Amino acid sequence: MSKAVVLLSGGLDSATILADALKRRYHPHCLIFNYGQRHHREIESAKRLAKKMKCAYKVVDFSLPWKGSALLDKQIKLPQNKTVNPKKIPVTYVPGRNIIFLSFAVSFAEAIGAKAIFIGANAVDFSGYPDCRPSFFEAYRKVMMKGTKAGVEGKSIKIIAPLLKKTKAQIIRYGIKLGVPYELTWSCYKGVKKPCGVCDSCVLRAKGFEEAGFKDPLLKAQDTRHKTRV
Amino acid sequence: MSKAVVLLSGGLDSATILADALKRRYHPHCLIFNYGQRHHREIESAKRLAKKMKCAYKVVDFSLPWKGSALLDKQIKLPQNKTVNPKKIPVTYVPGRNIIFLSFAVSFAEAIGAKAIFIGANAVDFSGYPDCRPSFFEAYRKVMMKGTKAGVEGKSIKIIAPLLKKTKAQIIRYGIKLGVPYELTWSCYKGVKKPCGVCDSCVLRAKGFEEAGFKDPLLKAQDTRHKTRV
Repeated sequence: MSKAVVLLSGGLDSATILADALKRRYHPHCLIFNYGQRHHREIESAKRLAKKMKCAYKVVDFSLPWKGSALLDKQIKLPQNKTVNPKKIPVTYVPGRNIIFLSFAVSFAEAIGAKAIFIGANAVDFSGYPDCRPSFFEAYRKVMMKGTKAGVEGKSIKIIAPLLKKTKAQIIRYGIKLGVPYELTWSCYKGVKKPCGVCDSCVLRAKGFEEAGFKDPLLKAQDTRHKTRV
Repeated sequence: MSKAVVLLSGGLDSATILADALKRRYHPHCLIFNYGQRHHREIESAKRLAKKMKCAYKVVDFSLPWKGSALLDKQIKLPQNKTVNPKKIPVTYVPGRNIIFLSFAVSFAEAIGAKAIFIGANAVDFSGYPDCRPSFFEAYRKVMMKGTKAGVEGKSIKIIAPLLKKTKAQIIRYGIKLGVPYELTWSCYKGVKKPCGVCDSCVLRAKGFEEAGFKDPLLKAQDTRHKTRV
């Protein structure tokens, strides 16, 4: 079994690629980032997912001592209840975020001798964020070939982005088939106890589950807990 | 004046590119990394250099919770008194280090609207480290074009590596002409009060000053201090 680095954010997509890596018979090593997100809820979700799916993980802490994204800067208003405009880069874009994530993944992959890096970029992000487009990953592959010891020595590391061209509904259907514990994932931009239901991320998630024809197990779990408490 | 991000390590080369950026009439914003190096001496040097040269700086902290380099892992012996073999990648290679450094520089450049990134990769590193080769920077330029908001919107960010093909002696001669305060720089792999004089980095520095026909002002400053104390 070859090792693979899996970028695990705690969201729907990254949980699905972790299951996908297991299905492809890789030995996943998850990479979780703590970089000053608005809340820690998604980091907790990522850790729980890794444990539940019996995979090793490392947490990389880093600071971004500059602003420029609604996900880092509490002064910028989070997008709510708006239709996602595929032609416009959203305010939640963090400058160079996937470039930074991939750079740590490359370092980790080299250090442990992994053969692949899994990243959960998908069709919905793809339209908005420049660092979720196929041409970006193509360019990044070349950087890994030219700029790493592994690459120079001919041991190339693959970037696998299995969700790139899938819709949210397709991702969910695929994940449910693989048995992904979606009740442990977190998508809401606001890190409260219950998803807010109105931010873009909540709206996309709800739409995905609706189109896939499933009830979101995260909401189901919370409903059950609520009923039990009552 | 356009803004530029300057990767400042506290060593000879990065001090020289900071002076070079000023000479080219950029407004430099220095980026200093605290990533678990063996010692903090070089971070202190970088801060002092930025202050002395009246430039703004930011310190990015990050953890690399894996091993794989003599610069991070105290279990690996540092190379000493050996001729540098240009065909072999040295044990001081940190997996993906320049890829990580550049990724933060890209994020910072986007956040402040900088037009260029200065990196002090040079001919000596160039032979050993894969992430100091022109083909690597060429590939990285493409990543920036494809994977950033700035790139996609046509506002490209340049990577300027002015020392790439210079020898250590040429760098020193150029820096002295520009008035670089080399007495504030630090090259030794060991972070003690005086440079050890035997590690590869000390040897390269000494050889550079000798070939350039100058006395190393860092050693001169220390000799003076020593004499004064005696």
